Amino acid sequence: MKVFNNSFTVGTNKRCEMIDITDKIQDIIGDVGISEGTAVVYCPHTTAAITINENADPDVVHDILLMLSEIVPHSHSGYRHSEGNSDAHVKSSIIGCSKTIPLSAGKMQFGTWQAIFFCEFDGPRRRTVHVQITGE
Amino acid sequence: MKVFNNSFTVGTNKRCEMIDITDKIQDIIGDVGISEGTAVVYCPHTTAAITINENADPDVVHDILLMLSEIVPHSHSGYRHSEGNSDAHVKSSIIGCSKTIPLSAGKMQFGTWQAIFFCEFDGPRRRTVHVQITGE
Amino acid sequence: MKVFNNSFTVGTNKRCEMIDITDKIQDIIGDVGISEGTAVVYCPHTTAAITINENADPDVVHDILLMLSEIVPHSHSGYRHSEGNSDAHVKSSIIGCSKTIPLSAGKMQFGTWQAIFFCEFDGPRRRTVHVQITGE
Repeated sequence: MKVFNNSFTVGTNKRCEMIDITDKIQDIIGDVGISEGTAVVYCPHTTAAITINENADPDVVHDILLMLSEIVPHSHSGYRHSEGNSDAHVKSSIIGCSKTIPLSAGKMQFGTWQAIFFCEFDGPRRRTVHVQITGE
Repeated sequence: MKVFNNSFTVGTNKRCEMIDITDKIQDIIGDVGISEGTAVVYCPHTTAAITINENADPDVVHDILLMLSEIVPHSHSGYRHSEGNSDAHVKSSIIGCSKTIPLSAGKMQFGTWQAIFFCEFDGPRRRTVHVQITGE
Repeated sequence: MKVFNNSFTVGTNKRCEMIDITDKIQDIIGDVGISEGTAVVYCPHTTAAITINENADPDVVHDILLMLSEIVPHSHSGYRHSEGNSDAHVKSSIIGCSKTIPLSAGKMQFGTWQAIFFCEFDGPRRRTVHVQITGE
């Protein structure tokens, strides 16, 4: 069993945005040459997150961001955090900053429609993604 | 350290449903004979998810599904995805498709009331669950 | 590769509360002497959860708990579970009971503002946190 730690950066362009990072993760898995094991994809930011969902129809991403904005509004009379990004912190905890994906035969065990997204909730910014590959 | 990849299928009967898959996961852990390690339970679908919650009182499952349906309504004038299942995609990202459970002495380190559920948000369908057991 | 299972308890003081457990997790990582690997932080309770977010400004925690209470109200005419804590079960599934963090050079790969919190949604109680460290 080996452990490989990698990172890459993502530039985001809007306040709220989901960016498909599947190819970057798959490239790292190929580079380290792990066949059976695990990928942990980790976002070290508190106003962003990682999720897995459909990338075939971009309307799915639209609808996810729409509903998150309704569930956690940008402005709210009860917010105390003075930076104006309380909603982004809440969304980060709801979606989560870490996803673990089983690898088999050197591939993420994704279903037909799955892709992995970096979720920006307080952009635009330059962000970092950590990727840890463990296995043999 | 060894890595075992397994899968099984689940048949769902309703549009929204939580199905207890604890016994199936525990059987796989027993079959591969891992004592100390990790179980990753992974849903390869974008309109379903995996969660851990109480199975003793079925009203808990009722209340979880009720609140998810209120938070993310089935119909919404802003949805663009044309398949009529935008809510299922949003719920999938909120609950998450991957859960990691520590194993000790060959058992998931569950609390008294914990069970692991496959969450169907766009059924009925036949679904797949991937289970990866890593350890020694 | 080695696997270490540890646990500690947390006393909570309010019905809803987020308690920073970063130092306790980091101490366990230091004690077991793992440099490259993974920490799984696991909550064995169905009315609590684990999240990663900002600890620099306590207003962030306030705003997360505020929004969770709005999204999932304590009282709701549709709740069936008779213990009066349906909201806590729903919040537990939304935030999630398990978080996986990559370790490098013996440290969690946290960003500048990240900390790990035990989320109490039905306290005050005495709670348990399981921590599994895997690596070399």
